Amino acid sequence: MNRRTALKVVAGGLVGGGAGVSILTTAFKPEIPPSSEPKELELKAAESDWEYHKLDPGVTANLAYSVYDNGSCMYAVVHSFVSQLAARFGEPYASFPSHMMRYGHGGIGGFGTVCGALNGAAALIGLFVADKGTRDALITDLFRWDERTPLPEFKPDTAILNFTPPASVSRSTLCHASITCWGQTTGYRVKSKQRIERCRRLTGDVAAKLAAIMNQLTDNTYTTDGHDDEATRTCMTCHGKQGKLGNTGGKMTCASCHSESLGHRLFSDLHYKLMGKKE
Amino acid sequence: MNRRTALKVVAGGLVGGGAGVSILTTAFKPEIPPSSEPKELELKAAESDWEYHKLDPGVTANLAYSVYDNGSCMYAVVHSFVSQLAARFGEPYASFPSHMMRYGHGGIGGFGTVCGALNGAAALIGLFVADKGTRDALITDLFRWDERTPLPEFKPDTAILNFTPPASVSRSTLCHASITCWGQTTGYRVKSKQRIERCRRLTGDVAAKLAAIMNQLTDNTYTTDGHDDEATRTCMTCHGKQGKLGNTGGKMTCASCHSESLGHRLFSDLHYKLMGKKE
Repeated sequence: MNRRTALKVVAGGLVGGGAGVSILTTAFKPEIPPSSEPKELELKAAESDWEYHKLDPGVTANLAYSVYDNGSCMYAVVHSFVSQLAARFGEPYASFPSHMMRYGHGGIGGFGTVCGALNGAAALIGLFVADKGTRDALITDLFRWDERTPLPEFKPDTAILNFTPPASVSRSTLCHASITCWGQTTGYRVKSKQRIERCRRLTGDVAAKLAAIMNQLTDNTYTTDGHDDEATRTCMTCHGKQGKLGNTGGKMTCASCHSESLGHRLFSDLHYKLMGKKE
Repeated sequence: MNRRTALKVVAGGLVGGGAGVSILTTAFKPEIPPSSEPKELELKAAESDWEYHKLDPGVTANLAYSVYDNGSCMYAVVHSFVSQLAARFGEPYASFPSHMMRYGHGGIGGFGTVCGALNGAAALIGLFVADKGTRDALITDLFRWDERTPLPEFKPDTAILNFTPPASVSRSTLCHASITCWGQTTGYRVKSKQRIERCRRLTGDVAAKLAAIMNQLTDNTYTTDGHDDEATRTCMTCHGKQGKLGNTGGKMTCASCHSESLGHRLFSDLHYKLMGKKE
């Protein structure tokens, strides 16, 4: 066998092998269901006296930014809404114990789980929106926006630190992952005053975004984006509630933490058959 | 070279190489600081009127278990505390909008982030404990207990589903990871009524644990466990606030999601030198 023939054999083997792998990786994959369609959401009557009244997103963002002290992102978002409503309408807003929300800093008591600004925004959705389906749709829209949008983008009227933080796409709603991602993009340490300013401005972004969402919902002009995340939908086709495995739940972006190995691609069908799921 | 000589050379190479790798992996590692010591915590005066009064852990757990409906883990934990205090003391507990906490189900609106029972317990710590250091220490104790303890262990007085869920160690405070871990241990699907019963009982466990912690804190007999997690401490020696990289924060168990590669072990020191961290 001369060099040219040998190269042809190797090339043929590679093409053939590649085709084989390709067939294996696609033949056993279940069909991915289509994404859900965008849908108009309606704000039904509030539970008890906790009604939302429209707030200015810019004013709310500046307020959240200005009361963020000592890393209290969750408190800042909640206080920015409730204090404005208390000033305009009194009770029940005036008696709301906003101080409790200080627990959410640093992904809950510094533990590193969910971003406190998002936890606070979700708590406000819980306070004002009675219908579970609407609540979950709004939270998903907000959390997906946070995962995908270069943040922070908010510019305060009066800057606490005269530094404009570069924006990064976090790909995660978890505090520690979001902060690490920003640090990798910008080179700043987690304890730097620049990183704190980044979170302070991101708190403003989340407050503004939530006010805009809630204003549209109040006007009955809010349309949920359908929640499509194709990569996550692919994973959940097998792993989600309706999938063959049905072994996890949630809507977080999977690939930020989990990577799909070749073994997973090749043997996932065999894996289904070996897993004897109950119920 | 005969077979025996060849084997000796290979064996020598392996030993030599292994020693080299061993030197590389240990020589450049910074010293891991000692763990923090257990410490007595004191409950300082409550902020505003939101004072904790001692509750029976068993009664509280049964109450949380019984009001967990439609997956409302966060609501169930918060309501189990606030409704008892409202029945005994009236205001301000009676006006607390517990309904807001329904947002926390399924890791916040079904998104899969932090466990709702833990989010609810942390919110109650936020409501009753004014001092930030004490709050964070209690949350860390509770979250670490959840990561390490085989759960659920709570046995309800009146079972809603006549099924005793096997216990599993979640190694994670995230809803989706905790549920997947339990499913892998037991074989039940995420949507099964058995998995729902598992979370309903875990909600009882978290309520009982928090009542026990808060009762000890009220009696000034609570000692935080020092928060040692040796594996996480090892990672945070470099990656945490005080480390050379200083590129992340938090106290979550790292190894549930991140595995340390040989490349990481070999080249971490070089990596430090190449990373030009600001501030």
